Amino acid sequence: MGSNQQSSAGLGQEFTQNVIDSMGANTNPRLREVMSALIKHVHDFAREVQLTTDEWMAGVQMINECGKMSNDKRNEGQLLCDVIGLESLVDDITFSAATKSTNGLTASAILGPFWRQDTPHRENGTTITFDTPSDGQVVYMHGKVTDVETGKPLQNATVDVWQASTNGLYEQQDPNQKEHNLRGVFHTDAEGNYSFYCLRPTPYPVPQDGPAGKLLEMMDRHVFRPAHIHLMVQHEGHKSLTTQIFDKDCKYLGNDSVFAVKDELSVEFVPRKGDPQAPLELEYNVTLAKSS
Amino acid sequence: MGSNQQSSAGLGQEFTQNVIDSMGANTNPRLREVMSALIKHVHDFAREVQLTTDEWMAGVQMINECGKMSNDKRNEGQLLCDVIGLESLVDDITFSAATKSTNGLTASAILGPFWRQDTPHRENGTTITFDTPSDGQVVYMHGKVTDVETGKPLQNATVDVWQASTNGLYEQQDPNQKEHNLRGVFHTDAEGNYSFYCLRPTPYPVPQDGPAGKLLEMMDRHVFRPAHIHLMVQHEGHKSLTTQIFDKDCKYLGNDSVFAVKDELSVEFVPRKGDPQAPLELEYNVTLAKSS
Repeated sequence: MGSNQQSSAGLGQEFTQNVIDSMGANTNPRLREVMSALIKHVHDFAREVQLTTDEWMAGVQMINECGKMSNDKRNEGQLLCDVIGLESLVDDITFSAATKSTNGLTASAILGPFWRQDTPHRENGTTITFDTPSDGQVVYMHGKVTDVETGKPLQNATVDVWQASTNGLYEQQDPNQKEHNLRGVFHTDAEGNYSFYCLRPTPYPVPQDGPAGKLLEMMDRHVFRPAHIHLMVQHEGHKSLTTQIFDKDCKYLGNDSVFAVKDELSVEFVPRKGDPQAPLELEYNVTLAKSS
Repeated sequence: MGSNQQSSAGLGQEFTQNVIDSMGANTNPRLREVMSALIKHVHDFAREVQLTTDEWMAGVQMINECGKMSNDKRNEGQLLCDVIGLESLVDDITFSAATKSTNGLTASAILGPFWRQDTPHRENGTTITFDTPSDGQVVYMHGKVTDVETGKPLQNATVDVWQASTNGLYEQQDPNQKEHNLRGVFHTDAEGNYSFYCLRPTPYPVPQDGPAGKLLEMMDRHVFRPAHIHLMVQHEGHKSLTTQIFDKDCKYLGNDSVFAVKDELSVEFVPRKGDPQAPLELEYNVTLAKSS
């Protein structure tokens, strides 16, 4: 058995290596790789800034507070990661690893904390806006899902869409919205087409009543997300895509509080003629890569 | 306003710098220093191991679970930090910064999650073991608190002591122990002396019913802490000391699950003659540095 007993001459890299080396022979190799790097970076961070016990404990309390606020409708730990760009980074890493060599593929963006597993399936051409607010602009959104290599339409792909209302709240945050308002799962037809009515998205603040909001305030940062619509597109035999599309005219486009915007995900809402249900239209086509 | 909008060409150091630069002008300088280093190390870690969204989400859920389990008697976020050596490291940093140039000063160790703010004050020579278990060995512990530079005794210093029982549980974890069993606050007399009866400490496992225990299991590590007694010693005009003293004969001395052992904190329990209350004795003297 090795010894991790320390002299008090300052806990440097030798201490860190002892902590890493304490992992036993039966540790999963990937877990060993991840934990070794995590321990090294966490220790290096603490030494670099000479982190004090009081500062560390403030961080521990912040993290514990995240757990206390989290439930099946809210994930504050996730939001805390989001405001320091971590979810966007791991999304980018995961997406890049899955799609190294494919041009023209629709880019991914973070899932965020408001997706729901139990969203109802709906018919193409129907609406997801059931309590349209007076300041809301209805959009007819439609597009085609195709295979990125062959260009062929993908039938029966699921297009899962969700968005906040103009008050900045998703339905699970807002007792005044109908259950599953502004979300739905659609299925592409034989030509790969999907369509539905939704709202033109508006910018909204991330929740400010928890540690993530407090941290943003301490970092003297604004809390807004640029106007966006969430999409998750899946088709059997193809890699699942999670993304967000952003209104190119939104003033927060270059300054997203969770760093999710990518150039190729900005879209333009255009006037729609002859449809009493919607003054605006958005065509958005999606490409998927075959699963390996 | 700068732009944090990204191309999808891989989120590297430029992305990280954008996240750091999003902090506003009114950020506290120390917070800016700490958050800049934290963001950089967290991003570098994610890139280094190519962290996937699934792995990151497993980490988020683990951290949220810590908060859910934590309350005024338990701090699972703290314990999670402890098992990767972080509390010992920040304790060492804090202690070293406070005491750069003083030889002979009693070394610090981590507070741990079981200290209580409302521990009763007790008379010297009295006991802290009220439900002595059949396998417990009572120790008469005593010593002197002095100024590290002058060697003069410090009167009316408080010696706050706490320890687990032989079943491995602190009283707040164990409904069968009397409230405040195995803890007390003592005051040194005119000669700087304190004294009380306690138990010879025994090794015990850290709690295994939460994320920290689960992580230890995944890392194929044992869960034991070497036998120890916690001390917090305070005196007006001197720097507060938080430490632990370790039984030098304990088999886990070189292999502490939370990496708190320092060479100079191991102690020897010796036979005590002529005291029907205790078969063992421990003399432990403490030195404190003047506060600056």
